[in-house]
Amino acid sequence: MSARKSVATAFMALSVLACGGGANEEANTRADAPATQVFEWKMATTWPKNLPGMGTGAERFARQVEAMSAGRLKIQVYGAGELVPALDVFDAVSGGAAEMGHGAAYYWRGKLPVAAFFTAVPFGMTTPEMNAWIEWGGGLELWREAYAPFDLYPMVAGNTTLQMGGWFNREINSLEDLKGLKMRIPGIAGEVWQRAGGTAVVLPGGELFTSLQRGAIDATEWVGPYNDLALGLHSIADYYYYPGWHEPGSVLEAIINIDAWNSLPPDLQAIVEGAAAAINDSMTNEFSARNAISLQTLVEEHGVEVRPFPDDVIDRLREISEEIMRETREDDDLSRRIVDSFLAFREQAKAYQQVSDVAYADIR
Amino acid sequence: MSARKSVATAFMALSVLACGGGANEEANTRADAPATQVFEWKMATTWPKNLPGMGTGAERFARQVEAMSAGRLKIQVYGAGELVPALDVFDAVSGGAAEMGHGAAYYWRGKLPVAAFFTAVPFGMTTPEMNAWIEWGGGLELWREAYAPFDLYPMVAGNTTLQMGGWFNREINSLEDLKGLKMRIPGIAGEVWQRAGGTAVVLPGGELFTSLQRGAIDATEWVGPYNDLALGLHSIADYYYYPGWHEPGSVLEAIINIDAWNSLPPDLQAIVEGAAAAINDSMTNEFSARNAISLQTLVEEHGVEVRPFPDDVIDRLREISEEIMRETREDDDLSRRIVDSFLAFREQAKAYQQVSDVAYADIR
Repeated sequence: MSARKSVATAFMALSVLACGGGANEEANTRADAPATQVFEWKMATTWPKNLPGMGTGAERFARQVEAMSAGRLKIQVYGAGELVPALDVFDAVSGGAAEMGHGAAYYWRGKLPVAAFFTAVPFGMTTPEMNAWIEWGGGLELWREAYAPFDLYPMVAGNTTLQMGGWFNREINSLEDLKGLKMRIPGIAGEVWQRAGGTAVVLPGGELFTSLQRGAIDATEWVGPYNDLALGLHSIADYYYYPGWHEPGSVLEAIINIDAWNSLPPDLQAIVEGAAAAINDSMTNEFSARNAISLQTLVEEHGVEVRPFPDDVIDRLREISEEIMRETREDDDLSRRIVDSFLAFREQAKAYQQVSDVAYADIR
Repeated sequence: MSARKSVATAFMALSVLACGGGANEEANTRADAPATQVFEWKMATTWPKNLPGMGTGAERFARQVEAMSAGRLKIQVYGAGELVPALDVFDAVSGGAAEMGHGAAYYWRGKLPVAAFFTAVPFGMTTPEMNAWIEWGGGLELWREAYAPFDLYPMVAGNTTLQMGGWFNREINSLEDLKGLKMRIPGIAGEVWQRAGGTAVVLPGGELFTSLQRGAIDATEWVGPYNDLALGLHSIADYYYYPGWHEPGSVLEAIINIDAWNSLPPDLQAIVEGAAAAINDSMTNEFSARNAISLQTLVEEHGVEVRPFPDDVIDRLREISEEIMRETREDDDLSRRIVDSFLAFREQAKAYQQVSDVAYADIR
């Protein structure tokens, strides 16, 4: 390793310049010196402050950016409702009220129905498949095209991994049992649930527990064992169903206001992109580790009954999900290209999975 | 966003100092200025220069570190044999001939038999499970403890994802067919193969093709569809067996000489750790995407016959693999702690996989 230029040398060269020394030589020295401008950003998030996994991940991202930039990019993280309500994050960053946001694309379905394909769709792709499609399968380019009209620059920045099917206070033994069953299940999945005969209710995370406890709803999905255990859902629900057909690997997004993004020097842009990929890795690992140990706790310490959905329920949910994907495809040209790219990648991934992950799980 | 201190302001403050201005105030200014020292590192790798996936990933890592550090940490990547032979990377970095290395821990089994547990062991953990164990399950602390006597600081920096079982020129219909079958299969897996009745041959990657072509070996494993297609193995082998029982998710490592590591300022340390996590994410995504499309090409364009190993072969290989894990556990106290931690995490992960990834693959 060699030290090309020490701080002391740089200072000496600068002092010559400041005191009126030869200008040409010192101009080069100045060009080499790292930028010292400090940026202070606000990050609005859709998570309760420090929610395990998502909220703590957003914080870790911000701390890592600050460490990597030696304090030249400081990001203040705001929980849902602190700066703007959770569902206003997209508009706040689009309009520049916050330089940056952290959340999930499917929250913006009202504005952009196809956005859900960049988080998770029922019977869609798993965590590694979503990551692979977005980075190496053309997904990112489509995502940036979709967000450009809103002055937003999106990137992958976390994942919840495959979720669980949810907590139920009624047994599900056949498709008939969905009739009138009130479940908190948002987005496309809620629409699927509704078409399958159930009643889909939209409730913010903070109201799940009391609604289920009071019997205002019969069932709720939340995330997976790690978050569900923390929320205490096992204490008020009888059955924990699997698998999470509705969210097979939800991508979390960092969105950046395009003017804020363009104002950063190239090294800080590289740091933000590197930190986003790093938190994607780290958050995925956290959920993998914590979900496994939390499921064990739920079953062994709390006696939770874990059950698979019956086949006829799954068959109907799958049928409706594919129907809704085809409908979204018809919205406009961009939606058609996104859905086609997504589905083509899913087919390839499914075929490979049979000789890799599925076959390995089978023999281990 | 606010610019706390522009380059111009910093220069003015420095000029006052250099010309003899008040010392106390300017000392603070100096402390705030980013370090300008440039570090030039050599990275020795165990891969042929620019080998798709591993070699190109090492290059991407180096470029990303340079971009994030605005050129303050430049890493020159050397392919196997350019600076030192592939299997000398550990010693070269340990002794300081290179500041850094990129490879896989199981190559150092001769020195440290338990090292394989930080890459992959037969019937061990998959890519997401390995990542989760190392970052959140105590694996990293054990790994750093194991490498500390060699003055090495290891971190996760890539993954090949689950591999394929290999290319065979003889059909495997039962355990009997392994008798005398000469397969290129290194490490613990080779030992398993040998104890199961086969003959394990160790050959560097560069000699696989001609050895199989000339009939000097009957079979070889390499990586997965992405790398295997590039090497052209389909043109000289009859059967492609699955799954990769011997390498279910091989972790690639960055190793750093401890003195070189300690010489970096905190921001450059954070950049190296961030870039390592980022390349772990990116390389995993690359293999996921490319393996899926390459398998399709192998089957549809080259008519490759893809086959599962017979049950009795798998059962025997599993039995021997578990036997060898137990043997490694007996080596010393550190090996015992590593193997116990690994196996406990694998049990938890296997149980969770049944209600998550396996169940989802089944219903999709």
